[in-house]
Amino acid sequence: MNYRMIKNILGWILIFEAAFMALPLLTAAIYKEKVFFSFLISIGICLLIGFLLVCRKPKDRTLYSREGFIIVALSWITLSMFGALPFCISGEIPNYIDALFETVSGFTTTGSSIVPAVEELSHAALMWRSFTHWVGGMGVLVFIMAFIPLSGGNNMHIMRAESPGPSVSKLVPKVKTTAMILYLIYIGLTLLEFVLLLFGSVNAFEALNISFATAGTGGFGTKNTSLAEYSSYVQIVVTVFMLLFSINFASFYLIIMRKFKDAFTSEVKTFIGIVLTLIVIITLNSRGVFDTLGDAVKHVSFTVASIISTTGFATADFNEWPQLSRLCLVLAMFLGACAGSTGGGLKISRVIIWVKSIAKEFYILIHPKQIKKVTVDKHPVEHEVVRATNVYMVCYIIVFSVSVLLVSIDNHDLITNFTAVAATINNIGPGLELVGPTSNFAFFSPFTKLVLIFDMLAGRLELFPMLVLFFPGTWKK
Amino acid sequence: MNYRMIKNILGWILIFEAAFMALPLLTAAIYKEKVFFSFLISIGICLLIGFLLVCRKPKDRTLYSREGFIIVALSWITLSMFGALPFCISGEIPNYIDALFETVSGFTTTGSSIVPAVEELSHAALMWRSFTHWVGGMGVLVFIMAFIPLSGGNNMHIMRAESPGPSVSKLVPKVKTTAMILYLIYIGLTLLEFVLLLFGSVNAFEALNISFATAGTGGFGTKNTSLAEYSSYVQIVVTVFMLLFSINFASFYLIIMRKFKDAFTSEVKTFIGIVLTLIVIITLNSRGVFDTLGDAVKHVSFTVASIISTTGFATADFNEWPQLSRLCLVLAMFLGACAGSTGGGLKISRVIIWVKSIAKEFYILIHPKQIKKVTVDKHPVEHEVVRATNVYMVCYIIVFSVSVLLVSIDNHDLITNFTAVAATINNIGPGLELVGPTSNFAFFSPFTKLVLIFDMLAGRLELFPMLVLFFPGTWKK
Repeated sequence: MNYRMIKNILGWILIFEAAFMALPLLTAAIYKEKVFFSFLISIGICLLIGFLLVCRKPKDRTLYSREGFIIVALSWITLSMFGALPFCISGEIPNYIDALFETVSGFTTTGSSIVPAVEELSHAALMWRSFTHWVGGMGVLVFIMAFIPLSGGNNMHIMRAESPGPSVSKLVPKVKTTAMILYLIYIGLTLLEFVLLLFGSVNAFEALNISFATAGTGGFGTKNTSLAEYSSYVQIVVTVFMLLFSINFASFYLIIMRKFKDAFTSEVKTFIGIVLTLIVIITLNSRGVFDTLGDAVKHVSFTVASIISTTGFATADFNEWPQLSRLCLVLAMFLGACAGSTGGGLKISRVIIWVKSIAKEFYILIHPKQIKKVTVDKHPVEHEVVRATNVYMVCYIIVFSVSVLLVSIDNHDLITNFTAVAATINNIGPGLELVGPTSNFAFFSPFTKLVLIFDMLAGRLELFPMLVLFFPGTWKK
Repeated sequence: MNYRMIKNILGWILIFEAAFMALPLLTAAIYKEKVFFSFLISIGICLLIGFLLVCRKPKDRTLYSREGFIIVALSWITLSMFGALPFCISGEIPNYIDALFETVSGFTTTGSSIVPAVEELSHAALMWRSFTHWVGGMGVLVFIMAFIPLSGGNNMHIMRAESPGPSVSKLVPKVKTTAMILYLIYIGLTLLEFVLLLFGSVNAFEALNISFATAGTGGFGTKNTSLAEYSSYVQIVVTVFMLLFSINFASFYLIIMRKFKDAFTSEVKTFIGIVLTLIVIITLNSRGVFDTLGDAVKHVSFTVASIISTTGFATADFNEWPQLSRLCLVLAMFLGACAGSTGGGLKISRVIIWVKSIAKEFYILIHPKQIKKVTVDKHPVEHEVVRATNVYMVCYIIVFSVSVLLVSIDNHDLITNFTAVAATINNIGPGLELVGPTSNFAFFSPFTKLVLIFDMLAGRLELFPMLVLFFPGTWKK
């Protein structure tokens, strides 16, 4: 194990985190908030420890698959642990576990909150919450890779461990350039949403917050009622952008490259099909809850986009909708967005591989002597990817079940426990019943909060990096 | 497709079903019940159609894998459709869908009932309900194979499609002899329980009913309160036998052959470990519900055995227990019994393969260039079995999710919908809330009942045979 290299990268993570904190620091300065000093102190701590870790350069810069997973897991843990400092130091979230929950929820783009009334938070704290979504959305290590050469060519292992989806597609041969292209698209789309929101007479502070939270498909808002109080124009803009940020960024790249046919992969088509189907079913089923059909379509579209993109913004309390609608939303929580987007959940591309694996299995049952390969978009999917995808489901079910079991020790109702885990492991935000869109996660015991913190990280990093930490074989020589 | 051979076997199924109905017919004769004639008419119908199907002997007796699955699926559907006749003709369950639900619940050893007060049913009807459990428990085609030569040597395909678990172990080289040995063990254990229950001063009728329902891990009782009114002795005997019938029958064969070491496979050991762990956790968690610790241990042991063996008998209303206990039971519903037993659920051997697949995946992530095989009991598990087991999980999740979605159209609460599907697809019987152990399934809409009927059959036959019927490729030449 290349411990020196791991230390070095964790150092860089802290230095970058200090840089990220400059934005809330600036916000505090503009609004003349006392919280300025909490951010200043936090930046100081991050820089101090960061430089201590970076100063001794590792001689051997080689990283293997194993180190890739460990670096990704530890980077996210480090990022969250130090990112929680400003909330604690300022006393806005005095309890460290609560502050950690909020920060993990931010970086993992979950958006589950333990803050009962977000409007009481300082502007700087709100900005930090939203910005953590934006940083976590595309992946912090991908960001760092776009700017500094981490490990002479071996950083594919890191990208593979951090990027969502069953397999990583490099847009261009160089990983660094791929990372830069992804971030340019990300920044471009975020700016576009920001400008469109300004046109909707949203003030710059809120527009920036909403844009960050949408881009990362996070869901932290600046108002207690999430997005319910905003105009229909704003709600529609956010609906469209939640869906855009759920699409594989490679598709945007292909559109820019004018390869329109290649951009509409079977994953993108399936995603659009699922979204439309859900909107139709839920609108028909929940029609009675709304005054007009137009209202129903608007709120249902927003909610479906919010849940399937795993953002978690709300304009209506879907906890009150009929059972079929509620259940459609719960299933959508698990489906999630496209691979290679900022959205969470199981990812549409995995669902496609699963369905095709089943079809293959049926084919083999009927014709035991023939050989069949799983193909997606006319390309055969590598055996390793299919196997890993199927094992992923098993792994997911086990982590999910154990989590619900541990959360149920608090003795809340089954739906609360089930959807609290579903909302965190899929990085969505709100669940049903006690953790519904008008509630928050503050009432859980510290133990349950730790379980959910683990689930948020495990969900964002797609299980393996977090679980590998607990696998004894990882630490053997 | 060898349609003639399929017709021939379906004919045999009906002839055997007529033979099975002789037992309730005899019961009706003994108790001088009018229902005698309904059974007589049903036997007549089965024999008539059965002989019509059998009379034209197929020239080609070859069966391939495809026919194996189709025969198993159609046999179970036929068995259930004709088995429901006596209930309908007698008017004890006038609605045909209800009667079909009850019969499918019987043959698949589920034990979910639509009868609000079983004590009002005739003795013959009660006997038929319990006997369907016994017939379905070990598999009706396995039974037929033990007595008649179905298809010159090719009947392994049928056994593979009907037997529970990821792979079929032949005890002896000949399939027919294997089937006979399995049935001898089955009959022996059933008789032993019957005798032990007689010692508990249970009358012969009830003792036979309970023994049939335990042996098949079914759960239909003869009293409205299930087994709550019986003595502790009876409850303990049933607890022990529910667990015995959850163990792979191959282990009993090995014990008889004095191969004690081989009998305790990792599956059996894991099963025992899980049962003990669950009893300890739930007893500690639910201690306050009971008067004494002894009572708690007795009821919790009974309930754990009942749920994990997927029998579904009840001595206590676990719907009222604390959340952690309820959730442990829900998880146990999914685990299920050992492969090659009469119990349902996902099967412990699959869980073992899943956990080992994950460990293998982690190993490969850390050491990408090494090759690792999944081994159980020191034998490598074939690649095909591991793949099919992982695909099984995916398939299970999809069938489960779609079922819950369809059931939720009735607009009952989520826990009712979720556990109704869990209780039927895992062939257990009771769920939670509206389908708790003191309730029944009568209130569901006919559509929901059809969905649950499909789930019971799909669960008993382990998904693939039922799903293959809907796969277009199955019917192509």
